[in-house]
Amino acid sequence: MIYLDNAATSYPKPPEVIKAVDLSMKLYGANPGRSGHKMSVDSAFQVYKCRGMLDSFFNGYGAEYVAFFPNCTYALNTAIKGIVKKGDHIIISSLEHNSVLRPVHKLKQEGVAEYSVFRVSEEKAVTLENFRQAFKDNTTLCVVTAVSNAFGNILPLKELSEIARKNGALFFVDGAQGAGVVELDMKNQGIDCLCVPGHKGLLGPMGTGALLHKGLPFSSIIEGGTGTASFDFSQPEMYPERLESGTLNVPGICGLKKGIEIVSKRGVSNIFQRESRLCRRLYKGLQEIPEVKLYQGDYNSGIFAPLVSFNVGDLHSEQVSAYLNENGIGVRGGFHCAPLAHISNETQKQGAVRVSPSIFNTEKDINFLLNLVRKIAIYRNI
Amino acid sequence: MIYLDNAATSYPKPPEVIKAVDLSMKLYGANPGRSGHKMSVDSAFQVYKCRGMLDSFFNGYGAEYVAFFPNCTYALNTAIKGIVKKGDHIIISSLEHNSVLRPVHKLKQEGVAEYSVFRVSEEKAVTLENFRQAFKDNTTLCVVTAVSNAFGNILPLKELSEIARKNGALFFVDGAQGAGVVELDMKNQGIDCLCVPGHKGLLGPMGTGALLHKGLPFSSIIEGGTGTASFDFSQPEMYPERLESGTLNVPGICGLKKGIEIVSKRGVSNIFQRESRLCRRLYKGLQEIPEVKLYQGDYNSGIFAPLVSFNVGDLHSEQVSAYLNENGIGVRGGFHCAPLAHISNETQKQGAVRVSPSIFNTEKDINFLLNLVRKIAIYRNI
Repeated sequence: MIYLDNAATSYPKPPEVIKAVDLSMKLYGANPGRSGHKMSVDSAFQVYKCRGMLDSFFNGYGAEYVAFFPNCTYALNTAIKGIVKKGDHIIISSLEHNSVLRPVHKLKQEGVAEYSVFRVSEEKAVTLENFRQAFKDNTTLCVVTAVSNAFGNILPLKELSEIARKNGALFFVDGAQGAGVVELDMKNQGIDCLCVPGHKGLLGPMGTGALLHKGLPFSSIIEGGTGTASFDFSQPEMYPERLESGTLNVPGICGLKKGIEIVSKRGVSNIFQRESRLCRRLYKGLQEIPEVKLYQGDYNSGIFAPLVSFNVGDLHSEQVSAYLNENGIGVRGGFHCAPLAHISNETQKQGAVRVSPSIFNTEKDINFLLNLVRKIAIYRNI
Repeated sequence: MIYLDNAATSYPKPPEVIKAVDLSMKLYGANPGRSGHKMSVDSAFQVYKCRGMLDSFFNGYGAEYVAFFPNCTYALNTAIKGIVKKGDHIIISSLEHNSVLRPVHKLKQEGVAEYSVFRVSEEKAVTLENFRQAFKDNTTLCVVTAVSNAFGNILPLKELSEIARKNGALFFVDGAQGAGVVELDMKNQGIDCLCVPGHKGLLGPMGTGALLHKGLPFSSIIEGGTGTASFDFSQPEMYPERLESGTLNVPGICGLKKGIEIVSKRGVSNIFQRESRLCRRLYKGLQEIPEVKLYQGDYNSGIFAPLVSFNVGDLHSEQVSAYLNENGIGVRGGFHCAPLAHISNETQKQGAVRVSPSIFNTEKDINFLLNLVRKIAIYRNI
């Protein structure tokens, strides 16, 4: 199967990542931070090294402000619910995934906070103006995605964060699709809290994610054993323990550590260039098929991450993706857990077929996909 | 190193478990329940099989009522906070781990619910009477551990659950130390919700845990992408999606699946017998060293899981465990994240050295440990 579903999770994982997971289960099999014996200390050291690598990779505020989570969704829930107070107003973008929309909507339903959605445009000035107009006196938090998981738009984080700061609001970023693919630099881009999955662009295993922040006073949403301050009936104040309860996914973290090493060595901008080349080829090929609908105005404008979404005529995206799947191409159809993005792009009925290559894909894969789409376009009733 | 810290996490993992994780990363590398392509369906099938195995293993209420979590602590937080309503009263035992105590204490601090602690005695009748007396008119939930992580006491779950039911309260069990080691049968023991780690007695990798329930109306505490009902701004009502947001730890779940297979094949009662034999040998050996303090009244009474905790004279347990660690024995000293248990056993100052063998330990390991403890007893100033 030609795997073009890297926005869901990256595949294949580099052999070095798989090897690191394997070794971890043999060499670092003890619970980190719980006991004092050698293997426990060794495994704690591996976890600490990965913490430090994430901090460096995203130019964060110190390894103690990096906390591990099972995925980006848990990290986002912790970040949002851990900081919002009763009466707050939150701003989110029109491209947010359910991992941001649903927690924010829950806070609204519980009467804790209100939220507004600002519309992202392909014109940066319009996006920024829409964002500006969304602020209220009680806006304390803005949460935006770095990259739309459904349509690939890259958001102008630096400019958005400046507006947030001027309005006295915190600026949180969902790095689910951006991490390892586009530049994410917390200090340079003014990101107060960044949530990332380990298993997408960072090439780590499923089951990993992280939250990086600048030392914010988060309340915990999960409490439990931390291996520290055992006699305190409350969660310890200290970071990262405040946000990390129970046993960590050590094999996953060891794999993630290796994934970050590989991404760092290749360089995020090289990865972006390589994958974008494939997407430009795909976009151009799809443009030449009259039945195909595309949703990215100008793919060459540099405002899209390497991800192309499309539909064929009025066919439901899941029909198209099912046909592609049957013919050896792994892509995702449907709604990608991003209802707001589909409302924005008027694809509420069809959803979209999403193609998301990795560094392991080639032009041949794209040509194969294009041939299949041409066939669908000719014989509409697949 | 002789590893005797299986109560923190089991080690070594069986080679078949490590192999299952490895294969999973190669064969089931797609995100389950997100896309429709073959590898995504394959990986969803693996997850579903593990769900079914957990359900069978614990005699649960159906695979849809099994939800995966990164560890037992997340499962317990979800269970407790997802069911407690304002004004409720909760009963917990005097042996609870911080993974139960801290979430319950948080609910109290937030003014949501009150809680009482009933004291567990080595005499069952006393335990049951203490439990009975803890009920109030507004008691809606009881949370007890199956096995004390600090002192090994096995709680009489069936009798406790009957009392809870008579009082109209739900009965939740923390299976952190019990799962895979003592009998846990949800239907037979009247357990309404059972939380377990995957990485201890079930021999799976760190990063895994599960919550099993009888179809209770839990509110979610984490919301996000579920791959279903994408257009609903709220978490779907359906199980297991209601409790599972974001990408699952597929490699971990595949490893856990293999772990459960191995435990099932060996048989929980055989595992219990084998490990208990080692503990009886250890307990007897420690009894013969006059300087050693033990906390289990009669180890042969059958009310203890295979876990022995002790101290040597007035030495702090961490000094003793450090000496053992330096000499090639991996055990844990300190407080084991269970302050209530240490208050009960008056070990608030010393903590306790905890020895927790697995099926992979031998009598030789125990003899080696005993020799070292004898040395410590002779030369008190280690």
